[in-house]
Amino acid sequence: MNLTHHIPTKLYFGPGELKKLGSERLPGKKALIVISAGTSMTRFGYLERVTALLQQNQTEFVVFDKILPNPVRQHVMEGAQIARDTGCDFIIGLGGGSSIDSAKSIAIMVHNPGDYWDYIHGGSGFGLEVKEKVLPIVAITTTAGTGTEADPWTVITHEKRNEKIGFGLLPQTFPALSIVDPELMLSVPPDLTAYQGFDAFFHAVEGVIANIATPISDIYALKSINLINTYLPTAVKDGSDLEARTNIALANTLSGFVESTSSCTSEHSMEHALSAFYPKLPHGAGLIMLSEAYFSFFADKAPERFILMAQAMGKDPASVSKAKRPFLFVEALLELQKKCGVDTLKLSDFGVKKEDISSLSRNAFDTMGALFNLDPYTLSRSEVEEIYARAYK
Amino acid sequence: MNLTHHIPTKLYFGPGELKKLGSERLPGKKALIVISAGTSMTRFGYLERVTALLQQNQTEFVVFDKILPNPVRQHVMEGAQIARDTGCDFIIGLGGGSSIDSAKSIAIMVHNPGDYWDYIHGGSGFGLEVKEKVLPIVAITTTAGTGTEADPWTVITHEKRNEKIGFGLLPQTFPALSIVDPELMLSVPPDLTAYQGFDAFFHAVEGVIANIATPISDIYALKSINLINTYLPTAVKDGSDLEARTNIALANTLSGFVESTSSCTSEHSMEHALSAFYPKLPHGAGLIMLSEAYFSFFADKAPERFILMAQAMGKDPASVSKAKRPFLFVEALLELQKKCGVDTLKLSDFGVKKEDISSLSRNAFDTMGALFNLDPYTLSRSEVEEIYARAYK
Repeated sequence: MNLTHHIPTKLYFGPGELKKLGSERLPGKKALIVISAGTSMTRFGYLERVTALLQQNQTEFVVFDKILPNPVRQHVMEGAQIARDTGCDFIIGLGGGSSIDSAKSIAIMVHNPGDYWDYIHGGSGFGLEVKEKVLPIVAITTTAGTGTEADPWTVITHEKRNEKIGFGLLPQTFPALSIVDPELMLSVPPDLTAYQGFDAFFHAVEGVIANIATPISDIYALKSINLINTYLPTAVKDGSDLEARTNIALANTLSGFVESTSSCTSEHSMEHALSAFYPKLPHGAGLIMLSEAYFSFFADKAPERFILMAQAMGKDPASVSKAKRPFLFVEALLELQKKCGVDTLKLSDFGVKKEDISSLSRNAFDTMGALFNLDPYTLSRSEVEEIYARAYK
Repeated sequence: MNLTHHIPTKLYFGPGELKKLGSERLPGKKALIVISAGTSMTRFGYLERVTALLQQNQTEFVVFDKILPNPVRQHVMEGAQIARDTGCDFIIGLGGGSSIDSAKSIAIMVHNPGDYWDYIHGGSGFGLEVKEKVLPIVAITTTAGTGTEADPWTVITHEKRNEKIGFGLLPQTFPALSIVDPELMLSVPPDLTAYQGFDAFFHAVEGVIANIATPISDIYALKSINLINTYLPTAVKDGSDLEARTNIALANTLSGFVESTSSCTSEHSMEHALSAFYPKLPHGAGLIMLSEAYFSFFADKAPERFILMAQAMGKDPASVSKAKRPFLFVEALLELQKKCGVDTLKLSDFGVKKEDISSLSRNAFDTMGALFNLDPYTLSRSEVEEIYARAYK
């Protein structure tokens, strides 16, 4: 049993914690605040609160507000240029995973030469080493889905190449400071609450079945699975329930710890292919639509792992025959999907075509092939196509 | 539910991990290696292996080998002087908690003026602010007891004042790098294995009952309790069992995480008083001798907490009446003590006298009074004396 544990982020968690931004020692004097191109950060007053707290903390800022739901390389390059031009010395990501991941990638590109894709491993990336300083990052989350506030990962899409690839090999892309204030999540609508909650759920689940799971990643993951199973239906039904929001936010942060200590598996490669081809497909929805087929395939290939997860979701292994025990997890997963109103999602409704399957499978291997090596069983290309086909409705 | 999570240490864990010292980027060019005054670091070849790996890593070093089992202020000051005189820019603690804690305190005193006790909160300390640079710390553990490799705490005794006080308010006293290699623990004799294992156990247990426990500290603590209950008897009986050693080492590191996210309670204040008065009394043994009386007193004052811990130790709450459920933890604790051969320890055998109780109680409040505020129930002075009296044999 050998493992590395390194999660250097200082993390403030809980209702009201945003106020810490006004007094905490920040890692720079001038921030580039990275937010989405949508209106929610201004409409709900989050940007105004953040800028007021920065002023209170004698910190200057510049706002960059172009980030798309599936964030793209081009905006990373633009944001880095603005940070350089305006002399920003740290980057704040305010919003969901897209804004925070963009903040991380911008932080890399402010002082490193060339194109962001030069540093990407996989796809058409050159895999160059990041040699220059990465600016410190502050993450302020307004959704509970990616766990990016608690891990070094950033997922960006190359807008011209159908490549959506994660990057997180540097300790510097851990946020120096993260603030997770569930009060900022009360405004997330039900469908996104469900998609994002399931994204966090699958980070934990994949982290349990990954062949690099450790006893420490397991405790983070099983707690996250338990909390999401308990609280996600309430958070979806009544978005104003602060207790449910807080527990889902905690689960999401724990899933970030899982990302930092174990890994996603090929389910994420397969979903990234879907959302690289169909950028309007929400990542969490893609995972949900793949999940029954994907986890049914793996259940009897890592039975003890699946039984642990079924137990974390309240299932009693002794209630069924030995062969059926790992499949209790799939049963619990489908029940949770139903309770959250996402059991009827169909890939065809998002424009996915059955004839895409071969290209999707190729893309999954080409861009995020490394994750297939972390699966508990090594999938062949045809098995990946089979999982896509079974998931297709 | 509000919490802060900040454990910046990079931690390599597992059999054989010591070799990372030869290739990892270290936080300085010249190390003061802090080891005990005993012979074990040379006898078992650990010091030689460490210095060879440092040489391989182009790093200079100076050895300081004076640390006592209950480490003292005077050696902190001496070590800091040597580090200054020889131009060391980081400190390696190699050994048990005493050496690593001394390394932390030395790291503070190399560039901060005055006496170490000037910075101590509690007792006769002045509680001054640490304003100058704290040197980076590398922890290499050869025992599993204090968890200091995974927390910011250092416990030092003032050799002239009967004061044994913990200090850990600075993020800089988290080791920058910790290496936990259970192969270095195979040489620990049975009695110390038990004492140290129980120290880690009580860090977890106190962290569960502390009134600042959080869902994250709970997952670290309950896993630690479970591992110690499962593996400590084997590690004590057969010190060469690497699987048992590895699991106890992991439990110990998790208990360090508990120290970083929750807190000890007054059991530690009460034990520090004992070992301040009787420096030859091993800290873990002191805790063991207090534990039955201490936890019996608290069991029905935080029943849900005690039931969680009993479950982590394999007890079934449904097997007894509701009133008895929290006491299942005390039952499991006594069973574990018996399995580890430490159920017959007596305070009187270590020289403690019944008439000390009043002074011990005063010392516990005077030096580590803050922990009493973190108990699930506020003890009076006479209740503390009552617990000492019940523990006295």
